[in-house]
Amino acid sequence: MQKFSRNNRIAAITKILLENPNKIMGLNNFTEMFNTAKSTISEDIVVIRDTLSRLDMGRIDTVAGAAGGVKYICGISPEKTKKFAEKLCIILKNRERIIPGNFLYMTDIMFNPNIIHTAGVVLASIFIDMDIDCVVTVETKGIPLAYEVAKMMGVQLVVVRRETKFTEGSTITVNYVSGSTGRIQNMSLSKKALKKGSRCIFIDDFMKAGGTAMGIIDLLKEFESELLGIGFLIDNVGIPKKLVQNYVSIVDFEGINENGNALLTPSKMFS
Amino acid sequence: MQKFSRNNRIAAITKILLENPNKIMGLNNFTEMFNTAKSTISEDIVVIRDTLSRLDMGRIDTVAGAAGGVKYICGISPEKTKKFAEKLCIILKNRERIIPGNFLYMTDIMFNPNIIHTAGVVLASIFIDMDIDCVVTVETKGIPLAYEVAKMMGVQLVVVRRETKFTEGSTITVNYVSGSTGRIQNMSLSKKALKKGSRCIFIDDFMKAGGTAMGIIDLLKEFESELLGIGFLIDNVGIPKKLVQNYVSIVDFEGINENGNALLTPSKMFS
Repeated sequence: MQKFSRNNRIAAITKILLENPNKIMGLNNFTEMFNTAKSTISEDIVVIRDTLSRLDMGRIDTVAGAAGGVKYICGISPEKTKKFAEKLCIILKNRERIIPGNFLYMTDIMFNPNIIHTAGVVLASIFIDMDIDCVVTVETKGIPLAYEVAKMMGVQLVVVRRETKFTEGSTITVNYVSGSTGRIQNMSLSKKALKKGSRCIFIDDFMKAGGTAMGIIDLLKEFESELLGIGFLIDNVGIPKKLVQNYVSIVDFEGINENGNALLTPSKMFS
Repeated sequence: MQKFSRNNRIAAITKILLENPNKIMGLNNFTEMFNTAKSTISEDIVVIRDTLSRLDMGRIDTVAGAAGGVKYICGISPEKTKKFAEKLCIILKNRERIIPGNFLYMTDIMFNPNIIHTAGVVLASIFIDMDIDCVVTVETKGIPLAYEVAKMMGVQLVVVRRETKFTEGSTITVNYVSGSTGRIQNMSLSKKALKKGSRCIFIDDFMKAGGTAMGIIDLLKEFESELLGIGFLIDNVGIPKKLVQNYVSIVDFEGINENGNALLTPSKMFS
């Protein structure tokens, strides 16, 4: 049996906890791994908890009882969140991002692991203390962000499709009206993808009028499931009439002004 | 200024390195954060490096020079990889996964953060020492896996679309022939999504005949870019004629036998 010092155990336990966000890890995992007493592991965890708390890097919760243990809960300080939102605004203001039709090209942002990891922590921190079973998104651009939120919350990701695929088995399809264009669209979900009575949050890249979110609420009803929270990376506040009211976002987009500059600010809750 | 013990610093530095895989972190980040000497931080990092190496949990590399520092490289032991592949086979063998047309329902697996994180580490470890600029996938099911691989490799994710979208700006579209069905299909990528001369790997959920991989090679040529590696979660080895030869996968799927059992084994490279 190898011998591990407190320093070694702290590095390893930190890694294991971080890689299993919001999952209860029994202390016996660690006592076996390091061949040491539970009281020793508890002291190691006190150090990790104290470090995360002093540096505002999330927290370690203790769960009592037979199935108890400790779990890592992600977190980020208000200052870091604000800085992140400000940095995102600067990146998005680059004039080369404006494409015909006055859209903002942001696909690279949605697929940038560095940015999406932090955005995922910001959104997950908001919903983490709710008792959620899964994170729902609609394909395609919001998938990495919704995946990060699901990972940080320790739950399953559910991706609603625009069309039915025969590799999904039986599906339920709902129609919804795009709030910004008025067009009728479809969204489908495999019957195997979601258990009845699930408590869900919806995560997506860009909030326009909220038609998609309304569609998700309808679709979840078909699964006898509930939508308890909504989060976006960017909210188009230039569209004032929203079909849903309770949602959070990281950055506000007000449109593109007559000089061709995109108007972007950190969302009010972070500024 | 708060005082941090070696234990505190080790917990915090472990977290920061893990959250920035394959990114060089200058030691001055840490000396400023903890108001301590470079030699002290170096000693902290020796402890972390030693721990990861003894537990086969990845490694810490030192990069010399003015822009130098340390970086975390993900890794997983051959035993853990084998156990993971075996566990995946057991999950996939569940008879309820067989859907009409003798497909295996695996969408929930592709969207399960726990499974996909480990699968991402397994695949990233294979390609990590190549000098790669981005990870390419085709929407939709492979996106979380490709995202994890990109994150672990510290590079951008690029998602090829099945249809063009007006929020993507100018796109390049190629036709390709599905190797298993013989049908002609499209794939598109925004001209903004990939720089000329990029070195790429392709990650996807399921390998059939390799038609999609061939399409990716063609598409990358249009961007004067190169495909240097291919990785899948599952390889359908029941289709013996493959259009591409050099690829890796975690699990082999041989089809469904006359008793209605899915034939699944860990890929030869892990068994």
